Amino acid sequence: MRELLAELTRALCDVRSPVGEEAALAEQLAYRPGAERIGNSVVLGRATGAKPAVALFGHLDTVPIQEGDFPAYRAGGRVHGRGASDMKGALAVMIALWERLDRERLPVELVCVFYDREEGPYEQSGLGPLLGARPDLRRAALALCLEPTDLSLQVGCCGSLHATLTFRGRSAHSARPWQGKNAVHEAGALLQHLNGLPPREVSFGELTYREVMSVTRIDGFTGRNVVPASCELNLNFRFAPGRSVEDAEAEVRALAERFGAECKVTDRAPAGPVVLDNPLVRKLRALSGVAVEPKQAWTDVARLGLFGIPAANFGPGEQAQAHQKGESCSEEALERGYLLLQRFLTEAA
Amino acid sequence: MRELLAELTRALCDVRSPVGEEAALAEQLAYRPGAERIGNSVVLGRATGAKPAVALFGHLDTVPIQEGDFPAYRAGGRVHGRGASDMKGALAVMIALWERLDRERLPVELVCVFYDREEGPYEQSGLGPLLGARPDLRRAALALCLEPTDLSLQVGCCGSLHATLTFRGRSAHSARPWQGKNAVHEAGALLQHLNGLPPREVSFGELTYREVMSVTRIDGFTGRNVVPASCELNLNFRFAPGRSVEDAEAEVRALAERFGAECKVTDRAPAGPVVLDNPLVRKLRALSGVAVEPKQAWTDVARLGLFGIPAANFGPGEQAQAHQKGESCSEEALERGYLLLQRFLTEAA
Repeated sequence: MRELLAELTRALCDVRSPVGEEAALAEQLAYRPGAERIGNSVVLGRATGAKPAVALFGHLDTVPIQEGDFPAYRAGGRVHGRGASDMKGALAVMIALWERLDRERLPVELVCVFYDREEGPYEQSGLGPLLGARPDLRRAALALCLEPTDLSLQVGCCGSLHATLTFRGRSAHSARPWQGKNAVHEAGALLQHLNGLPPREVSFGELTYREVMSVTRIDGFTGRNVVPASCELNLNFRFAPGRSVEDAEAEVRALAERFGAECKVTDRAPAGPVVLDNPLVRKLRALSGVAVEPKQAWTDVARLGLFGIPAANFGPGEQAQAHQKGESCSEEALERGYLLLQRFLTEAA
Repeated sequence: MRELLAELTRALCDVRSPVGEEAALAEQLAYRPGAERIGNSVVLGRATGAKPAVALFGHLDTVPIQEGDFPAYRAGGRVHGRGASDMKGALAVMIALWERLDRERLPVELVCVFYDREEGPYEQSGLGPLLGARPDLRRAALALCLEPTDLSLQVGCCGSLHATLTFRGRSAHSARPWQGKNAVHEAGALLQHLNGLPPREVSFGELTYREVMSVTRIDGFTGRNVVPASCELNLNFRFAPGRSVEDAEAEVRALAERFGAECKVTDRAPAGPVVLDNPLVRKLRALSGVAVEPKQAWTDVARLGLFGIPAANFGPGEQAQAHQKGESCSEEALERGYLLLQRFLTEAA
């Protein structure tokens, strides 16, 4: 099994699919019986409602190609190639499960979803249109995103809100700054407040998420000898599951008002629900014994949550390998992931 | 006299001389007997040491041409044209004084210096090379820069130091900022300190200068979802006469160290000495009765001061007109400036 998964992973890595260029890979998947191609996404199977549906999700794209990414190769028990960990090894596991399990006899309906443009901006991801085009997927009793998690089960995820905060000043010659108002200086109190702000911990059972705020960009310039008339910054608020996007937005707006900045929210991604109580998640934990972790960064489980689909991340790739030069994955982990999912799908109900 | 000065000013305004393009204007001046052309600068006369020398300084260039600058015209007692106030009206006064006074009989030696590239960067100004090429000018008992001062006598000037301050952080995913160090947040304490810092007043007799510090640029960005690894800002320190450039630099370095920033000084312009006790300045004040003011912004009197030449600003142009669209100057002020300087040069000793 390990050999098969490793070879399949290597072959998948050799099909270039940087974000936006997933057509060739989608074509290879779409010829299978029962496949539906939607743009450059492909869905194998359907959630008919006859049995509880388990949907496995994987994205076809990788981050942009770097020098040395091709050809993919195997060495020292690892597959080396662009996307090996994020997440072509996982695609190999999905394909093998689809082809080798006796799906009719499973206690669940298996659906495999391969989607495009995950590594690009939120709004351009292929997952949104796909979920719109395939309402049957909303019936899924559990969705597993096979993103790299080192075979831990990662549940929930923090939401992410971006806002542009603008401090307004009044320009003046920098020899006579009292005739103006320095917008960059005005930003100081907010920055100092954020500098001293500890993460706010929010716990769900054994899992703890941390709400944090960071300025990730600041810009202020009018002229070298001119008191700046405005200072703009990007504030990123990561908020824990359980808090709505509206509530997160209200908190950022209140903060901006308190420190005298204008506020324009530019991006709102909801938090992903913590699905610890989902019966299939309990089953997966019981059968696999894998570690369970909170997911701090935003992932597509939140997008699935928006469609009412309980979702968690669980994949054989390594988080530390994702997006790295010389990316690789462990062949043993591929096999272990396959076997854990095989057992889960076979004994889930 | 007013008619002559106004017509001459109008004619000078009609010769385009944006910074760096002063050749045509320099040529018109250089044909006079006793003229020396140095690059696009022209000096009329020489400080021989036979009598105390009074040097009048004017720059030939204007800020870049704007739509509607040409042709220059007269209307409502004013000359309209690019550079009318800054400072072709003053050039007309200098030329008229040079041509109409009986220089042999004056109690002082009159030298008129017309230089280029004043409106550009400090290092590119024509005044530096000119002062190097004409060591006789260092003998001047007084230099008057005929920059627009509304016919006030402006003495001294603040120095100006620019430094790049860099806060270093450590990048991390903005979902896990505690794994890094936010360089933009680190800048907050300094910005807040500057925001609350009142100008520091430094007085010389009746004149008060204000030492001020302003951030005029800030930049920090690594990625939208990344804790910024560095934050860079430009700090401009305007320091009063009496403080050396070295002392100003030490103060900025100490401030940077106190707030944890690296510091690179990028520009040092010295303060201009307060020449209230200069005998010719006293004489000018006594004869003219004009108001005396401190000069807060940096001007070339500081550069002259570096060469040991006592200098002050005194000109017929209007400060509010300088660099403005539709720039103009008062014909009455041209005449008044001419008469005040004529009297000063005639009765100075």
